[in-house]
Amino acid sequence: MEIIKWEGNAVKLLDQTKLPFFYEYITCTSYQEVANSIINMKVRGAPAIGVAAAFGVVLAAKQKEHSCTIDLREWVNKAIFDLENTRPTAANLFWALNKMKKVLSFHVNDEPHLIISSLEKEAKKIFDEDRAVNYMIGRFGAQLLFDGAKIMTYCNAGALATAGHGTALGIMKEAHKQNNEISVIACETRPLLQGARLTVTELMEEGIDVTLITDNMAGYVMKNYKVDLVIVGADRIALNGDVANKIGTYSLAVNAQYHDVPFYVAAPFSSFDFNIASGEDIQIEERDPSEVRSFLEKPVVPEKVAVFNPAFDITPCKLITGIVTEKGILFPPFSESIKRIGVDNDG
Amino acid sequence: MEIIKWEGNAVKLLDQTKLPFFYEYITCTSYQEVANSIINMKVRGAPAIGVAAAFGVVLAAKQKEHSCTIDLREWVNKAIFDLENTRPTAANLFWALNKMKKVLSFHVNDEPHLIISSLEKEAKKIFDEDRAVNYMIGRFGAQLLFDGAKIMTYCNAGALATAGHGTALGIMKEAHKQNNEISVIACETRPLLQGARLTVTELMEEGIDVTLITDNMAGYVMKNYKVDLVIVGADRIALNGDVANKIGTYSLAVNAQYHDVPFYVAAPFSSFDFNIASGEDIQIEERDPSEVRSFLEKPVVPEKVAVFNPAFDITPCKLITGIVTEKGILFPPFSESIKRIGVDNDG
Repeated sequence: MEIIKWEGNAVKLLDQTKLPFFYEYITCTSYQEVANSIINMKVRGAPAIGVAAAFGVVLAAKQKEHSCTIDLREWVNKAIFDLENTRPTAANLFWALNKMKKVLSFHVNDEPHLIISSLEKEAKKIFDEDRAVNYMIGRFGAQLLFDGAKIMTYCNAGALATAGHGTALGIMKEAHKQNNEISVIACETRPLLQGARLTVTELMEEGIDVTLITDNMAGYVMKNYKVDLVIVGADRIALNGDVANKIGTYSLAVNAQYHDVPFYVAAPFSSFDFNIASGEDIQIEERDPSEVRSFLEKPVVPEKVAVFNPAFDITPCKLITGIVTEKGILFPPFSESIKRIGVDNDG
Repeated sequence: MEIIKWEGNAVKLLDQTKLPFFYEYITCTSYQEVANSIINMKVRGAPAIGVAAAFGVVLAAKQKEHSCTIDLREWVNKAIFDLENTRPTAANLFWALNKMKKVLSFHVNDEPHLIISSLEKEAKKIFDEDRAVNYMIGRFGAQLLFDGAKIMTYCNAGALATAGHGTALGIMKEAHKQNNEISVIACETRPLLQGARLTVTELMEEGIDVTLITDNMAGYVMKNYKVDLVIVGADRIALNGDVANKIGTYSLAVNAQYHDVPFYVAAPFSSFDFNIASGEDIQIEERDPSEVRSFLEKPVVPEKVAVFNPAFDITPCKLITGIVTEKGILFPPFSESIKRIGVDNDG
């Protein structure tokens, strides 16, 4: 299942709002179309947003004629600014756009066509590396999944959230490939049902045993049916190990601790934000109330009812057992283990 | 809003599956129609189910000619048996049917028409008493709600779950009537959205400030916005104070404890089961997977996906701050306070 396809003058994005009943690609030939697809969650999942935004920058550079390098740089910087302002929480978006900005700065004196080819090369590299990184996360994380393990997961941290393979789901796919019999409990993830629509579909396609529950059943399942561990993805990770992820992750982590169920986060280096000390500094996106008032566009409550619709929450590091990255599994104290991978990367 | 109307040879039930967009009554002239309405959750909420079942017994007695008392008793006992087998968890169903059985036994030597009028009198009494009891619960519980209190509630323990006024929502209505400014956060309550469809509608009609959230937001809201207390209803309460209530109540109670938010249950005497020591003895109904696979009849996932759909869960007494009844607020140790009201009632 390819969710992002680069075609030189266009990027094709699998429309995730239509899954699992329709597999339709949106063809974006301008960065504005990419930005709108991110805002409307046609493409979602922190790593996937980063990759899509990188290609958006390339489209910006290509979508109109530039008389000179200055003209090109101004226009591309505007595009980067607009892409940065699509969604505030996922770190990978800013990480990928920073990479693109660096390329732009580095080639400041080049001809427009050389800058464009450098930008395109970088975006493709971001795409390829994300896939590679997920396979490494999968291999490290699979060590946690013994034969017979029962895993609970939340939202979708799969191929559909990345350039391919997935983070949390990549771990399960790797364990399955190694012939460990695992079973997965997928929480549906209100309001947009990424768990029901995307995770369930992705795991069924892989032949992995999956059972769907509503989010509010998690505590009951942990209490009455042995759950060995929880694995979720991440949208942004602070220096102390606090994790921003899809709304509901925090309530789930509280329940995991109460039931002594280890709680793991799977995320690439690009999800870490080395500029913030804790989760308190992470901006939580609030989305349109209609997402809660309706269900897949079918109204549920009178239109005028007040609704609170935060898209993410912060799980404090003290509720997290470990963070699976492409550099290995990080354990507490996270302030030390996270600093270490940051230093490694700079080196 | 009348949800159960007795008309002598029929009982009219407000179809709660159609709310809030359609107000339609189902007219039941046979006990089988009442039983089906309970099974299909056209009428729901533990006290309301009890009242509806009592009228179902009266309909059974009236719906065909009986040559003799023995014939009538056999038929009515069959009806009671069928009504008992509609849903297993709510105590009030069995409590009300036991009351009807007692009337049948007491009038064992009467003429059929006298038995029928005794049954009808008893069913009306159950109906009237449930309303009265809710007002008493409201008055006791309102002592907990100071001016400015922010209350979180779950599912619907309102007029729509009872013969009128409601248990948990009855408390909020009473506080509102006393001019205490309260605000309510209603969890939508998947899979059937009783919180979104029923509680929100009921509170808006009363002019009470209500905000809707999805169930998975509860922890985030407790962490970041001061919630003063949680009040929920109950489907069955064991002798030790363990409470069966709508699935998700337990996950919510775990979060309430983690955030030091007092957790109250509001329920009438008829919800207590004095025959069971703890929640372990309560049968949890599992309902059709289609309730999770679809959303208000709109499919969400491929039809074949495995689903787990328990309709209730057990909140252990240790997570409960107090139980508001028509006899006052019970506090721990519940094994003592519950026994006390049981003894009072026998006396």
